[in-house]
Amino acid sequence: MPDRLRVIVWGENVHEHKNAIVRQIYPEGMHNCIAAGLREDRKLEVQTATLQERQHGLTKSALAATDVLVWWGHAAHGRVADKVAERVLSRIWEGMGFIALHSSHYSKVFKRLMGTSCSLTWREAGERERLWVCQPAHPIARGIDRFIELEHTEMYGEPFAIPAPDETVFLSWFEGGEVFRSGCTWRRGNGRIFYFRPGHETYPIYFHPIVRQVLRNAVRWAAPEGKWIDRCPNVPIKKARETLTQKGPRLHKEGEAGFR
Amino acid sequence: MPDRLRVIVWGENVHEHKNAIVRQIYPEGMHNCIAAGLREDRKLEVQTATLQERQHGLTKSALAATDVLVWWGHAAHGRVADKVAERVLSRIWEGMGFIALHSSHYSKVFKRLMGTSCSLTWREAGERERLWVCQPAHPIARGIDRFIELEHTEMYGEPFAIPAPDETVFLSWFEGGEVFRSGCTWRRGNGRIFYFRPGHETYPIYFHPIVRQVLRNAVRWAAPEGKWIDRCPNVPIKKARETLTQKGPRLHKEGEAGFR
Amino acid sequence: MPDRLRVIVWGENVHEHKNAIVRQIYPEGMHNCIAAGLREDRKLEVQTATLQERQHGLTKSALAATDVLVWWGHAAHGRVADKVAERVLSRIWEGMGFIALHSSHYSKVFKRLMGTSCSLTWREAGERERLWVCQPAHPIARGIDRFIELEHTEMYGEPFAIPAPDETVFLSWFEGGEVFRSGCTWRRGNGRIFYFRPGHETYPIYFHPIVRQVLRNAVRWAAPEGKWIDRCPNVPIKKARETLTQKGPRLHKEGEAGFR
Amino acid sequence: MPDRLRVIVWGENVHEHKNAIVRQIYPEGMHNCIAAGLREDRKLEVQTATLQERQHGLTKSALAATDVLVWWGHAAHGRVADKVAERVLSRIWEGMGFIALHSSHYSKVFKRLMGTSCSLTWREAGERERLWVCQPAHPIARGIDRFIELEHTEMYGEPFAIPAPDETVFLSWFEGGEVFRSGCTWRRGNGRIFYFRPGHETYPIYFHPIVRQVLRNAVRWAAPEGKWIDRCPNVPIKKARETLTQKGPRLHKEGEAGFR
Repeated sequence: MPDRLRVIVWGENVHEHKNAIVRQIYPEGMHNCIAAGLREDRKLEVQTATLQERQHGLTKSALAATDVLVWWGHAAHGRVADKVAERVLSRIWEGMGFIALHSSHYSKVFKRLMGTSCSLTWREAGERERLWVCQPAHPIARGIDRFIELEHTEMYGEPFAIPAPDETVFLSWFEGGEVFRSGCTWRRGNGRIFYFRPGHETYPIYFHPIVRQVLRNAVRWAAPEGKWIDRCPNVPIKKARETLTQKGPRLHKEGEAGFR
Repeated sequence: MPDRLRVIVWGENVHEHKNAIVRQIYPEGMHNCIAAGLREDRKLEVQTATLQERQHGLTKSALAATDVLVWWGHAAHGRVADKVAERVLSRIWEGMGFIALHSSHYSKVFKRLMGTSCSLTWREAGERERLWVCQPAHPIARGIDRFIELEHTEMYGEPFAIPAPDETVFLSWFEGGEVFRSGCTWRRGNGRIFYFRPGHETYPIYFHPIVRQVLRNAVRWAAPEGKWIDRCPNVPIKKARETLTQKGPRLHKEGEAGFR
Repeated sequence: MPDRLRVIVWGENVHEHKNAIVRQIYPEGMHNCIAAGLREDRKLEVQTATLQERQHGLTKSALAATDVLVWWGHAAHGRVADKVAERVLSRIWEGMGFIALHSSHYSKVFKRLMGTSCSLTWREAGERERLWVCQPAHPIARGIDRFIELEHTEMYGEPFAIPAPDETVFLSWFEGGEVFRSGCTWRRGNGRIFYFRPGHETYPIYFHPIVRQVLRNAVRWAAPEGKWIDRCPNVPIKKARETLTQKGPRLHKEGEAGFR
Repeated sequence: MPDRLRVIVWGENVHEHKNAIVRQIYPEGMHNCIAAGLREDRKLEVQTATLQERQHGLTKSALAATDVLVWWGHAAHGRVADKVAERVLSRIWEGMGFIALHSSHYSKVFKRLMGTSCSLTWREAGERERLWVCQPAHPIARGIDRFIELEHTEMYGEPFAIPAPDETVFLSWFEGGEVFRSGCTWRRGNGRIFYFRPGHETYPIYFHPIVRQVLRNAVRWAAPEGKWIDRCPNVPIKKARETLTQKGPRLHKEGEAGFR
């Protein structure tokens, strides 16, 4: 792991401008609050980007210079350009880490990574949530005791339509009687993915010191371990490792790129 | 498992009309050859659909009446309408089985299910392939001995950019020195997915009796086990299983549909 | 799946004789109560076996004639002979299904299948439990609505020291504030494994009609799909599929069995 | 990851004394050759231990001071004391990494971690093997190009009776026509496990610079991320996070340790 990690916190930045409650809680925007939490780790170089910027702030060069992308969206998933979503996916496959927060379960990028509908059940009652650590000693749970308690949260309940996670780091208990897989990891290509449930915009979740600890841990965990550029190369017959001669008919000329 | 399964074999149906070699091998089209192999199991009700049909033959009602969809595409992945690809995905999440053949690794539906680039290395030399059974007694390998040998195939080699499979049923050895994960399963939502590598259009692969056996096995394995309609429902506070009262601010009105 | 399945319900049968509360709830023994629940499916041929029988009732011939083994143990895991536990493991690897109930998380067979410590946290307060279905339409959840409620249960809490499950079918919510992965599946060799949490002996859990429905579903789901006898064979050089000649020194004589 | 890692290379150390070929290739013993390869990374503190030492050199204090254990065994798996194997398992569950080499697929520890029979097919013909990298940029494949070629190896072929790996880092191609999952990872408790196939004692495999590179990579990858002591604690009613009162009968007294 490199000593310093370059992080972009991406925020949809919509409700902060439209909804008085959200604006009051996050006057600087949610992305800036999340970024401030990450900056408590002095070795993280944290920048922000928002939907409203050109290319949503996620140009090719910006992504190339990013180790981990943290994503928060809710009301405007559909306004994220397909082209940008696909560029983010390609960069994840190369090795960039990706952290999807709360309502980002329905973001274009997360749904594309999962290959499922990513639906769930939900209720906005400001109820108590307790996230239990299922894998003590997992790097993402470092410094967390047996659980995290949040007094006021939106509820997300099972069934959560995701593929079986590689690891289930947190499971949530809700006051109203539901449960949820609140902290899950997957790998897609060379990129590490972490979904973390807390984060509804009408509560000051991202000011919570333990939530911030989880986010810093997750960014460290998701750091690229290497880089792989995906090319789908044709292997010429003369470069086969075992002696080989052309047999039978063929569709492609030697060295052709093939269909994509 | 219902006694009778309703299957659609979808074929891109392009090379059969453009390439003399392919037309000679598959004069009725590849989809019809694959369908004929499946019909050797009298309890499979097999239909075909092609790119050229209205909505590619995959209307809402056609998919609703389908238990397993078998997909072959190569040159025209980009011509499959996004709307149709998304409709297929939704039906898979409900429970429909999906079998992706050979170059369909790059089809829109398969890439969306995997969440990865699905790239690989390849060579068209008509070389020998031997598919080894990694899970003896797996239903997809039923009736297959320790391996399948194909005298002339296109080579696909690792790295195959897929998420870790739930099960690796077949691994391929190639004459030219490569290996490949040729038969893999995943689950996405309620749908079962199987990828099977053999099937290049310049060889009569789909006439091979053992390949046909695998396809029949796979269709039986991928049969829906149930059906789930994905709704992402709001749970009203008064319907919470534990007594709950509204606390704190909220974004949504009671009973709202939420953002998608 | 064969029309009829042969099932053994194995019971430790200790507390029923030592503890007045347990004897009162399960006068016929827990194994007989579980067996009665399974027999509500007329196509299941259900027998019982107990610790006290010769070879714990799990002779080689008994296991050879069994499709699915259901296991309940708690106080006497250490009294199960290693030889019998290993025989059960071998039969699971061949294809027999295995269902571990409640405190059987600490049984020799289950711990050997998992390769982990299988520890958890626990509390015996007779509290309410709600098991949420995470995979609607999964065969094990067939006929179950969105959740199962049990008024009085022992609590098991996370961390549950298991390998990442292939599927998480049920997650539990507890009145006292904990959560637990209560219904999980794995595959080991050709055998399907299901762990189901409910079942403390001081409550009449196995009389509950929905619990019995889950058990019947689970037995059907765990039915063998085939049989594979594990042999670790030497492949003689002359039987290699590609022409091969002996090169370099060797440790074993041609056709030797090798070390085990 | 700590700057320095403490490694034990465990060697069975039997054939080196009994077989002239093996003694000639590995005059210092295989464990010392493997250790020498690891020591090329100056930040690894490498010790060795053998079957012949008291407690096989794996005392409680030795294991407590070990970050990663590398294991090579073949002819004497049965002579490893159960008690020592179980001590190793417990330490892995706490967080120690474990690397199983070649014929250690049949070692007590590895079989216990997998929960399967771990069988395979094999042939000792000195044939060519080519290990393909399936996950480019995986830390274990760092510095390795697309494949590793070994001119003379024993063949291991599928089916390899393991649970589905978390990651398949290497797949092998063999001259005689077989394939094998040669580099696989799993997680058990907090411990990371890597199986690496090459290493037959009649060939100088562990002098090969690229094999040594893989071993150094694997040790770094398997470094503990934390430590968790498994206790299976009872949670007293008064310490429940939600207010709870004792209801119904109970088997255990408050604060009891429970059955193991």
